[in-house]
Amino acid sequence: MAYIDLPEGLPGIRGPMAFRPQTAKPLNLLAEVLLRDDNALTRGERELIGTYVSYLNDCFFCQNAHSGLTQHYLQCDTDSIDAIVHDPESSDLSPKMKALLAIAAAVQKGGKHVRADHVERARKEGATDVEIHDTVLIAAAFCMFNRYVDGLGTWAPSDRMFYVKRAPARAIEGYANYDPNH
Amino acid sequence: MAYIDLPEGLPGIRGPMAFRPQTAKPLNLLAEVLLRDDNALTRGERELIGTYVSYLNDCFFCQNAHSGLTQHYLQCDTDSIDAIVHDPESSDLSPKMKALLAIAAAVQKGGKHVRADHVERARKEGATDVEIHDTVLIAAAFCMFNRYVDGLGTWAPSDRMFYVKRAPARAIEGYANYDPNH
Repeated sequence: MAYIDLPEGLPGIRGPMAFRPQTAKPLNLLAEVLLRDDNALTRGERELIGTYVSYLNDCFFCQNAHSGLTQHYLQCDTDSIDAIVHDPESSDLSPKMKALLAIAAAVQKGGKHVRADHVERARKEGATDVEIHDTVLIAAAFCMFNRYVDGLGTWAPSDRMFYVKRAPARAIEGYANYDPNH
Repeated sequence: MAYIDLPEGLPGIRGPMAFRPQTAKPLNLLAEVLLRDDNALTRGERELIGTYVSYLNDCFFCQNAHSGLTQHYLQCDTDSIDAIVHDPESSDLSPKMKALLAIAAAVQKGGKHVRADHVERARKEGATDVEIHDTVLIAAAFCMFNRYVDGLGTWAPSDRMFYVKRAPARAIEGYANYDPNH
């Protein structure tokens, strides 16, 4: 049971978002711009950064919700996303995405863990300033979302297929029009 | 020098916000709702939570920008805010604020560090569900802002009075109408 009196039956972030729509609105606008708006990184790549940071923060709800979306966009399965987040450097991701995930992992530890050589590596692999900026902010934002979800002790379905099945509808819905009650 | 090519001369978060106004907008809307909108906690109390988490994350810019605002709202000086963030339990804050800062410190470590007894203590000291929710989300949001500012290697004035002097104008300006270029 969550630590505060949240509306019942809403998984993960949906409970606190329904409880406090005033803060849900800017949170969803941020997710929409960061994860869906036109941008040099694809939606799948951006959802993967969020999935990876949620895995590093051990946030079950966020990891699975965004792994589901990543699978939908990249047309792959749970096992392949699990393999990436467990060891991105050994995956068959592009050298640029590996460098961006290394930046995301540093951000997850703390802002000062990002070093000039992390950024240098990403730039050498072709990452633009906007892609580096967005990687840092996506990773930072998931450090917020993960803490919001787990810091309030929210409930999440344990069946990982729940999230995979919902992903196509979520991808159509987007974040800006997100209705936490559904 | 920042890790990416940010507009020159803008301290802290202002550089990346000017670089990427698309993400600045929802970030500022979030700060406006969380830190300024009508709410059970005062503006000073909410800025204090942000200052405390920024101190724990060792983010010089955010700690000082929000300490300046806290001093402005609570009508106190830098030394008294420093004393609180170094050791909130020994301060003369209310028992409720001490309990909320303990929740914020747990959120800073990670969402799962918040335990039922943290929340129980806050509730016993008179905190409402909205105040507990907002404390968790403010602390989580500063874990994002701090990582955004330091993860991009932004520049910040080292003179702490810079922030104290700017605070009254910042308090009038608010976050929603924030212009990163000034």
